[in-house]
Amino acid sequence: MVPTLIKDLLSSKPESQKVTVCGWIRSVRDSKNLVFIQVNDGSCFANIQLTFDRNSPSPNANVNNIEEELKKLNTGASVRAEGLLISSPASGQAVEVTLESLKTLGTCNPEEYPLQKNKMSMEYLRTNAHLRARTNTFGAVYRVRNQMAFAVHSFFQERGFQYINAPEITCSDCEGAGEMFQVTTLSMEKIAELGVKAGAGGMKIEDAHKIVDYSKDFFGKKASLTVSGQLEAETMATALSRVYTFGPTFRAENSNTPRHLAEFWMIEPEMAFFDLDDDMDIQEDFVKYLLNWALTKCRSDLEFFDKRIQPGLIESLEKVAKAKFVRISYTDAIAKLEEAEKNGAKFEFKPYWGCDIATEHERYLTEKIFGCPVMVFNYPKEIKSFYMKQNDDGKTVKAVDVLVPGIGELIGGSEREENYEKLLKACEERKMDMSNYQWYLDLRRFGTVPHSGFGLGFERLIRYITGMENIRDVIPYPRAPKLADF
Amino acid sequence: MVPTLIKDLLSSKPESQKVTVCGWIRSVRDSKNLVFIQVNDGSCFANIQLTFDRNSPSPNANVNNIEEELKKLNTGASVRAEGLLISSPASGQAVEVTLESLKTLGTCNPEEYPLQKNKMSMEYLRTNAHLRARTNTFGAVYRVRNQMAFAVHSFFQERGFQYINAPEITCSDCEGAGEMFQVTTLSMEKIAELGVKAGAGGMKIEDAHKIVDYSKDFFGKKASLTVSGQLEAETMATALSRVYTFGPTFRAENSNTPRHLAEFWMIEPEMAFFDLDDDMDIQEDFVKYLLNWALTKCRSDLEFFDKRIQPGLIESLEKVAKAKFVRISYTDAIAKLEEAEKNGAKFEFKPYWGCDIATEHERYLTEKIFGCPVMVFNYPKEIKSFYMKQNDDGKTVKAVDVLVPGIGELIGGSEREENYEKLLKACEERKMDMSNYQWYLDLRRFGTVPHSGFGLGFERLIRYITGMENIRDVIPYPRAPKLADF
Repeated sequence: MVPTLIKDLLSSKPESQKVTVCGWIRSVRDSKNLVFIQVNDGSCFANIQLTFDRNSPSPNANVNNIEEELKKLNTGASVRAEGLLISSPASGQAVEVTLESLKTLGTCNPEEYPLQKNKMSMEYLRTNAHLRARTNTFGAVYRVRNQMAFAVHSFFQERGFQYINAPEITCSDCEGAGEMFQVTTLSMEKIAELGVKAGAGGMKIEDAHKIVDYSKDFFGKKASLTVSGQLEAETMATALSRVYTFGPTFRAENSNTPRHLAEFWMIEPEMAFFDLDDDMDIQEDFVKYLLNWALTKCRSDLEFFDKRIQPGLIESLEKVAKAKFVRISYTDAIAKLEEAEKNGAKFEFKPYWGCDIATEHERYLTEKIFGCPVMVFNYPKEIKSFYMKQNDDGKTVKAVDVLVPGIGELIGGSEREENYEKLLKACEERKMDMSNYQWYLDLRRFGTVPHSGFGLGFERLIRYITGMENIRDVIPYPRAPKLADF
Repeated sequence: MVPTLIKDLLSSKPESQKVTVCGWIRSVRDSKNLVFIQVNDGSCFANIQLTFDRNSPSPNANVNNIEEELKKLNTGASVRAEGLLISSPASGQAVEVTLESLKTLGTCNPEEYPLQKNKMSMEYLRTNAHLRARTNTFGAVYRVRNQMAFAVHSFFQERGFQYINAPEITCSDCEGAGEMFQVTTLSMEKIAELGVKAGAGGMKIEDAHKIVDYSKDFFGKKASLTVSGQLEAETMATALSRVYTFGPTFRAENSNTPRHLAEFWMIEPEMAFFDLDDDMDIQEDFVKYLLNWALTKCRSDLEFFDKRIQPGLIESLEKVAKAKFVRISYTDAIAKLEEAEKNGAKFEFKPYWGCDIATEHERYLTEKIFGCPVMVFNYPKEIKSFYMKQNDDGKTVKAVDVLVPGIGELIGGSEREENYEKLLKACEERKMDMSNYQWYLDLRRFGTVPHSGFGLGFERLIRYITGMENIRDVIPYPRAPKLADF
């Protein structure tokens, strides 16, 4: 029979009713007459306390059984316990369970259990990623991650968006948004063999590439993992009006930093009939919705992060959830940064009109200048993508980035260029191979509409909401250079 | 300003209020005095009708503007229209919009528009997958897909499950659940070159594999796309109790059939403290929940499928949603099939104890013998996976498949082997390389618990609910051998 989750037991009215508790031991405190066992099942931050009073056990308690089982219990062992749910006389918890019977499902040898140590570094836990969900920190991270994923879906479903799945394997590349992983069923060992054979037979080096025959590859051509589902999302938005993706995307960049993953989840909404202002409105609504959801539904997990990971976290999230986001043009933002520099602000990279706004600039804008989230819009076209709608000034495009304190850029979006000729010209200027993008141009040939969209990296969001420092610690199994364990 | 979605307009009370309609023209009927324009925005199956009465236009109608714009309109063109929402005098719709002004946002040249033809085959539409969401059929498919995705999340969230993301890129292989795609940043052209060079220098063929140096690959070893997130989900379930994945998985099998995709979305729940009976209970609940959701929230889309794609669809889904699923052991199921064969049933593959139950057998069981969904459990261990819990008979494992009429297997699941020694032995019998699975065995060394899970292919579900014949038509951009367009 399926046991009740501990989060549901903890919110039940204690009426001495019989309950079953299943979970993993967090601690056992066995003093002379009283035994306290903390059990956690990951359904919430809190443990439930099992109590066994040797002087006055529960009338139905199987005392011999309990004493036998107690000998097997260590941190990490799993149990099925039965007892009565009563209101707890001790502070710190509303209810507890007086033990009637106890069964050790799985023991946990303290000599071997990797989570025995008192102080475990994040690095150490990463090497035990298959077990780290059993710790306070990672249980909380994964519960927040779960709540945020459902918040994302709820936000868009409430607003008439259709969830769509962009392909993971692709032969186009979203204009080199990043380095790509190749996906293949060709055998590299076989290619090496064919090379050695051909070399022995006198093949010239410059002909070696002929050995690689993509017509024999699974898809009949060279294929890669997607860096973004945006272009495909646009095809769906220009039929279903409002759509969003939420799926994995990939970057093969050799970035060994606490802010980069090779595999990460992206949320990419795309909205027909939305201009840049509409886009900014919904981005602001979205961020606030997510923060309010976290503040309401993940309260005890956030309290843990606030206490142990990033002091002040809750207050800072609450502030952003209530703030009116500042909207400022790139041109004005650069002027503010130049002025700040004149007045003594120190930047690694000098800000000037035309520069990419670096993380240090983003954070200076949102943390120092405005003290609240900032939406910077109308960027120079040279530093942005081909698909962004061109402004009449001939210099800027209708792009927007949302900057938040502590993180910098959280969201990047734009109105898309819906004019066929202008889009074609932007592609040509960038010397793109248009044969891969005819389908994308078709959207501008047949019933084109103004439309906008944006992208939010899910792990960046989780990092922001939990205050966790390293992005590798907000996804169960991080992938990064030289890292693909489990 | 963001327009109201047509689905919301259609359910608004008509009070001659001014409304804005944005969408794509489905048809224009221009008789002498009356013009009817059908506009669709993909938010629902139905169009909204714009009307323009030349004899008595709306008092505020910009007649010249409307006449000018009408000349530009063809099927596929996009418009922004304004007018008054009134109750419709015609049958077939509750409300319509009397035009006051009209703006063509994007024209659509009927000579070039690929969706002009009256009868378009599914194959033809597949070659225009970037536009097919604009048709009745595919709009309906994608809306059902969206609803089903949200139903999946809602079902599990309501039951205290945590959504988790298993990795897409992996170095383990879930015991060869299928052929895998390799993921790499090594250049095959470079390997060919090195081969040619080495061959010219006299390298022996049997040494050619040395040219392929995975230590230089992105992850420092050979990596692939996952075929299943189950093993990783188990690591999370043995910490968070109830979890589910919902993400892409991949099979590099050369199966060019209407039932296989190389990239598809899988739902893989995993539950600690659930035995096989609990597993079957929740599978049955899950299927019924999904069907009821579809029958309630996708009614007009399902009515279309019932009428045009698979007559009888709604009745058959309703029947399953109300049925008590039959539970029968593999041994009894085989006996039933053998008996049926004796009585004249024709099978391509003869059923016998020990055989894999083929789709023809599955469908015979669910369609002919029982006339309702069937859960077949306790399969011979030889035809199932290493991780399934072994029964005491020494011959069978606690696996279960859910079979539904018209499809055959919809769900496959099992209780997992939680005993360390038994699991290790099952791995050894299969001569698996255990160095990749120590982390998985660890779950049985440290606080092991009984647990169960199952897998549901999302596209198979959508095929079942829509009645669409080819699985390539229930995902926006299907991937299959030689197929990775867009």
